[in-house]
Amino acid sequence: MKVATDYLWFQTAEREQFVRITDEVARFVADSGIQEGFVLISAMHITAAVYVNDWEEGLIEDIREWLDRLAPKRDYRHHRTGEDNGEAHLKNLIMHHQVLIPITQGELDLGPWQQVFYAEFDGRRRKRVVLKAMGV
Amino acid sequence: MKVATDYLWFQTAEREQFVRITDEVARFVADSGIQEGFVLISAMHITAAVYVNDWEEGLIEDIREWLDRLAPKRDYRHHRTGEDNGEAHLKNLIMHHQVLIPITQGELDLGPWQQVFYAEFDGRRRKRVVLKAMGV
Amino acid sequence: MKVATDYLWFQTAEREQFVRITDEVARFVADSGIQEGFVLISAMHITAAVYVNDWEEGLIEDIREWLDRLAPKRDYRHHRTGEDNGEAHLKNLIMHHQVLIPITQGELDLGPWQQVFYAEFDGRRRKRVVLKAMGV
Repeated sequence: MKVATDYLWFQTAEREQFVRITDEVARFVADSGIQEGFVLISAMHITAAVYVNDWEEGLIEDIREWLDRLAPKRDYRHHRTGEDNGEAHLKNLIMHHQVLIPITQGELDLGPWQQVFYAEFDGRRRKRVVLKAMGV
Repeated sequence: MKVATDYLWFQTAEREQFVRITDEVARFVADSGIQEGFVLISAMHITAAVYVNDWEEGLIEDIREWLDRLAPKRDYRHHRTGEDNGEAHLKNLIMHHQVLIPITQGELDLGPWQQVFYAEFDGRRRKRVVLKAMGV
Repeated sequence: MKVATDYLWFQTAEREQFVRITDEVARFVADSGIQEGFVLISAMHITAAVYVNDWEEGLIEDIREWLDRLAPKRDYRHHRTGEDNGEAHLKNLIMHHQVLIPITQGELDLGPWQQVFYAEFDGRRRKRVVLKAMGV
């Protein structure tokens, strides 16, 4: 059995920014030499998400507006600690911070429109995603 | 170590339809011969979800109504591409597109009320779910 | 390859209560002897969640208030069965019932602020979380 681990680093220019990472994940899986197994892509922060959906700019804007409605900026209790990112924590919870992708015949077993995204909700600082693959 | 892969196909009669798939997943695991491990059940589309919850018709209607409130049909930017399914993408994101179930002593290690569902939000066409199991 | 399985039991004093379980998960992984792999932490009930976020009391209160807004108590169809916990099912769906944590060099590969929580939405009875680890 093979196990491989790596980390993707991000420092977004904007506080909120969505970054497509499908190619980075595919390259990591190819390098691992795993033919059959799983790869986990998981944000190591509590104000960022990893999700799978469409690579279409209009939809990405729709998702951002929708998240603003569901988790608006407001005066959260959390801000008494000096933070100002309460809404970013809630967006992390809606979107979930991880996905697990099957590896089949050495490749990401994704549907035709499925792309992997890192969604930053409190950026402009160095943050990480862990990649971990296991299989044969 | 054993790895098994299969795909479930769906073509729902309705645009939005929820389908219980616990038995199909259990059969796949039994056929795999895996006694201890994991099985991933993951929608290969960005307008459908896979989730675990109750097999109770009233609750399923509650979930559908609730999703309509959180992700209403409206004129999304995504529709400029010719699509009309913006809300289906958002429902996929709330519900998440995958679950991972432990396999213990050859069986799905689920709680007494846990059932696996495929939730279609933009159906009436052929769509897929990938099943992937790994273990010993 | 090694596989380990265990169950955490909960009986919360309150109907809704959040319990940090990072230490229990870390101990389980240490006992498993697994150096590289995955550990799944998954609620076995449909009215409880397992999630990763901040260990900060103000934020936990924010999350609870926010969930009350997104999934308010009301007269759900599900209540015709005699239940009164419709909102607890919906909160389970928003928060998701499971997380998968990478094990690297024998430890939980979490970011500095990531803590694992069990979120009970319909407690005061015995409920379970399954822990399953697999790796080398």
